[in-house]
Amino acid sequence: MTLPPGATIGILGAGQLGRMLAGAAIRLGFRVHILAPEDAAPARATCHAYTRADYGDAGALSAFAAACDVVTVEFENVPVAAVEAIAAAGVPVRPNGRALAVAQDRAEEKRFLEAAGLVCAPWRPVDSLADLEAAAAAIGPKAILKTRRQGYDGKGQRRLDAGSDLAGAWQGLSGAPAILEAHVAFEMEISVLIARDGEGARITDTPPQTHHAMGILRRSRVPAPLPGAVVEEAKALAGQLADQLDYIGVLALEFFVVSGRRLIANEFAPRVHNSGHWSVEACETCQFENHIRAVAGWPLGDPALRFPAEMENLIGEDAEAPVADLLSRGRLTLYGKQAARPGRKMGHLVRRLAP
Amino acid sequence: MTLPPGATIGILGAGQLGRMLAGAAIRLGFRVHILAPEDAAPARATCHAYTRADYGDAGALSAFAAACDVVTVEFENVPVAAVEAIAAAGVPVRPNGRALAVAQDRAEEKRFLEAAGLVCAPWRPVDSLADLEAAAAAIGPKAILKTRRQGYDGKGQRRLDAGSDLAGAWQGLSGAPAILEAHVAFEMEISVLIARDGEGARITDTPPQTHHAMGILRRSRVPAPLPGAVVEEAKALAGQLADQLDYIGVLALEFFVVSGRRLIANEFAPRVHNSGHWSVEACETCQFENHIRAVAGWPLGDPALRFPAEMENLIGEDAEAPVADLLSRGRLTLYGKQAARPGRKMGHLVRRLAP
Repeated sequence: MTLPPGATIGILGAGQLGRMLAGAAIRLGFRVHILAPEDAAPARATCHAYTRADYGDAGALSAFAAACDVVTVEFENVPVAAVEAIAAAGVPVRPNGRALAVAQDRAEEKRFLEAAGLVCAPWRPVDSLADLEAAAAAIGPKAILKTRRQGYDGKGQRRLDAGSDLAGAWQGLSGAPAILEAHVAFEMEISVLIARDGEGARITDTPPQTHHAMGILRRSRVPAPLPGAVVEEAKALAGQLADQLDYIGVLALEFFVVSGRRLIANEFAPRVHNSGHWSVEACETCQFENHIRAVAGWPLGDPALRFPAEMENLIGEDAEAPVADLLSRGRLTLYGKQAARPGRKMGHLVRRLAP
Repeated sequence: MTLPPGATIGILGAGQLGRMLAGAAIRLGFRVHILAPEDAAPARATCHAYTRADYGDAGALSAFAAACDVVTVEFENVPVAAVEAIAAAGVPVRPNGRALAVAQDRAEEKRFLEAAGLVCAPWRPVDSLADLEAAAAAIGPKAILKTRRQGYDGKGQRRLDAGSDLAGAWQGLSGAPAILEAHVAFEMEISVLIARDGEGARITDTPPQTHHAMGILRRSRVPAPLPGAVVEEAKALAGQLADQLDYIGVLALEFFVVSGRRLIANEFAPRVHNSGHWSVEACETCQFENHIRAVAGWPLGDPALRFPAEMENLIGEDAEAPVADLLSRGRLTLYGKQAARPGRKMGHLVRRLAP
């Protein structure tokens, strides 16, 4: 399938990633139709049509599917049933529902990564306090308890150590299915952004080093300072994952780097990713355009890095600094969100680094 | 006046320039409200609000003004009365109505350019066949008859030479006021894109060489192959014009280059300009962002050129080439227009050139 210019690309979700995807699609001559439950949302002003509906609204999904030539997603927690309903109506959804289902459940995700040949930190599923106690005994006391579902930006996570109150930690999750994952004493975190098209062709961006604080991405700097062989291995592992998922579009795979060269897979996001926002300024073809090209059946574009770059997220009140100050610190993108709540991603800056 | 993020920027006009301006404004966190008479237009999918109204609709203009914090234009032929009505409602219009009025009338434009210290080709106003005959006698037979108003992309122009039928040429204009302008045997055409803010600070893009065919811009290549002193003079002349117009925003001034270094001013456009579309890919800050920054009272951004580049317009059926072919020729932008009429600008390509 190769969509002609003027065809309609549907997007589930209307946040900043949806806005940037929609902008890339419109730039390439497509029409964009967004479905999302929010009234005010970053992507709402960047589309030809906006259906305000819950992801469980069968009638709205049916009408949305009928209006679109292909559908994609801007976040990984779109209910799989919504994606399946659209696919059942005969409209391709890219990436497929399987990729979303795997990414939505940390236990499924770990199993899938391991089956695809990647190495994860030791982990155990935890469905009870007894499971947690057994897992802590097996993995060791320094570990992270994470809910299997709905976690992002550090939400639904608890760090444990020797002497931690396991019962209290378990109760804190209110019975939600979880996993216990060994703490990884990493030297570096990196992400790999890979695009794969419907024929299986892939391109991979130069991997950035990422820095998180309180579970939220703060900065992403490209290229990550790693030996070429490690970079190539990270790209190859991302390729294995994308192939196994029969993935179409961009996905982001996060790794811990330990002992200078061992790559421990952390998690993946079946979508464009905050850690690749520098690609708009720094790459021949940005992640948003390559996602749209893959989804539309167009050839992928050259992801070559033009110059080293750093992206800094503007979180909460970061975005309320004087405009002149923000502009002096890099190329500014603001997401148009009204309330700068703590921890909320409000925008980002991209700056060119000296080679 | 410095607008905060979230303020509303109004744009008169909804073509591709409006779409790219709106995209830049949204990216910086502004709301965008567009007023234009078209139902389907390139910018319609890139705005928070769209008022479909004629530029002469006083009620619509009044409501539009009330909804905007500042208003700008995407094309130079917006009726000056519309701009004056908005300004009279207390909403700043940038650029001002005077700049539009001057640019809308070729005779006023020539007079203004000359008064600002620029050199134009010899010209005369022509309001009758007698005027035309006198002008041809004064200027010489090789000349161009141009309507004073509503000319763009070569429309409303007739080339004359020795033996041309002056009466026929004059009748062809149906009595429209015109000018006769001496033909310039130029070696090169260039344009200068300059941004000026409300405090009079200015930045100037590296001037490109432009290539026209049938009066329509085909290619714009930056940097123009000119000695540094000529480039500096062109920038300085554009600065004189912008200052004299008390201009806020981006304007484009076109020059003929003769004898290797003489700069003959041709015309200016009080808006962002097709000849500067490479600035999106090739400049630290593109023309659209700098126009929005000027209009919003924000500091202007660095216009430094990252690499030599060429923009090629896709006109009429150019845009109907296979997508893979278009993508192989540069970074693709399509304007989302449905009918590829001959001479209609459908999109453009930008490619990086070897340094």
